[in-house]
Amino acid sequence: MTEATHTVKSYEQELEHLRSLMAQMGGLVERQTAQAVKAVVDGDEEAAIEAPELDPEVDELEREAEALAIRILALRSPMAVDLRTIVAALKVTGDLERIGDYASSIARRAMKLEMDGSTMSLVGLKNMGRLVQDNLRRAIDALTERDRDGAVAVWQADTAVDELYTAMFRELVTYMMEDPRNITACIHLLFVAKNLERIGDHTTNIAERVYYAVTGEMLPAVRPRGGRGHTST
Amino acid sequence: MTEATHTVKSYEQELEHLRSLMAQMGGLVERQTAQAVKAVVDGDEEAAIEAPELDPEVDELEREAEALAIRILALRSPMAVDLRTIVAALKVTGDLERIGDYASSIARRAMKLEMDGSTMSLVGLKNMGRLVQDNLRRAIDALTERDRDGAVAVWQADTAVDELYTAMFRELVTYMMEDPRNITACIHLLFVAKNLERIGDHTTNIAERVYYAVTGEMLPAVRPRGGRGHTST
Repeated sequence: MTEATHTVKSYEQELEHLRSLMAQMGGLVERQTAQAVKAVVDGDEEAAIEAPELDPEVDELEREAEALAIRILALRSPMAVDLRTIVAALKVTGDLERIGDYASSIARRAMKLEMDGSTMSLVGLKNMGRLVQDNLRRAIDALTERDRDGAVAVWQADTAVDELYTAMFRELVTYMMEDPRNITACIHLLFVAKNLERIGDHTTNIAERVYYAVTGEMLPAVRPRGGRGHTST
Repeated sequence: MTEATHTVKSYEQELEHLRSLMAQMGGLVERQTAQAVKAVVDGDEEAAIEAPELDPEVDELEREAEALAIRILALRSPMAVDLRTIVAALKVTGDLERIGDYASSIARRAMKLEMDGSTMSLVGLKNMGRLVQDNLRRAIDALTERDRDGAVAVWQADTAVDELYTAMFRELVTYMMEDPRNITACIHLLFVAKNLERIGDHTTNIAERVYYAVTGEMLPAVRPRGGRGHTST
């Protein structure tokens, strides 16, 4: 009896530890994304430097979560919701790692952006950054709280991110046409916008994973926007 | 005895089925990538249309492979190399799905590219496309043949992809500066090059996964190029 109780308890502890690793990893990439946006929109150099510095920590957490997930799979033979949660963890760590990567990439670009004297407006990017960060935070909340409805809400919200991206794309092309001196800065901003859009995509993936882990059912393959990874611009 | 033999056999069959699903999925995204490159470099409209049409099939295979992996984990409690292979499958399907996504995205852009009368050279893109396709094919071979050395070779080859990307980036910016009428086409080509580079990144991820599944050890966190997802341009 003591043996059984002990086993049950440490199994629960392992699952709890996995959840905590995921939450830590989520928190880190959230911070990277926030810094990346700050680096571009406010020209904050410290933020630009700090975001990529967090990469190794994110990678280390990914490895740790994965090793733990494999250990639980091997030793505990989890079933049903536990099994789905562990499989979701294995997939979600990949999405979080990519989000961290995109955020670092944005931050590195920010350091090369020379916006002095430019008349370009960064309002579109600011809005896009705010929305992407907001969705990411909610996706990570849904992940840690196993919140089905929260996951659905995030999944639906990505349409707005895509719309903002399309508007930004057009705006930046116009700036480039108007004055070739804007070209280099605009290319960097285009990639920043694209990376934010990709962060939005991975955020949606996380929401889909959470939904599956909690309910055992998949969200439809086609997102509200009309197709995963559809790139009209 | 018959019972046990039967069970062993069907477990082997399940693993074989999983491998076959992965090989099919790999073959499909290889084809998508080849068509995407053909669509851009040769202006092949049929290829441009076919690549995105394969997306639902790729998504379906991903779901199928994942459901099977979960079933094996739940019912067979695989250990050691089998467990690592199944975990690798769960991660690799994600990479393959993204590769298919990037290829479709390239093909869609190809349809919007108006290169008529342009003096821009697509030689750089052609070389990059060839190299990325080549690496992808070798990564999928390494995956299906569980070839450790093949995986290491792919992992090392990505440096050349990154170098080609950097050269293309500079070339395209020069074209844009020279003549603003090139801007829209060049932006599309920039994204095409970026997507090829990302396909290269995911190909490297697959190689890392294969290496881990076969050996039980991780390749170093830092790739030869000096950092995963490092974006200098």
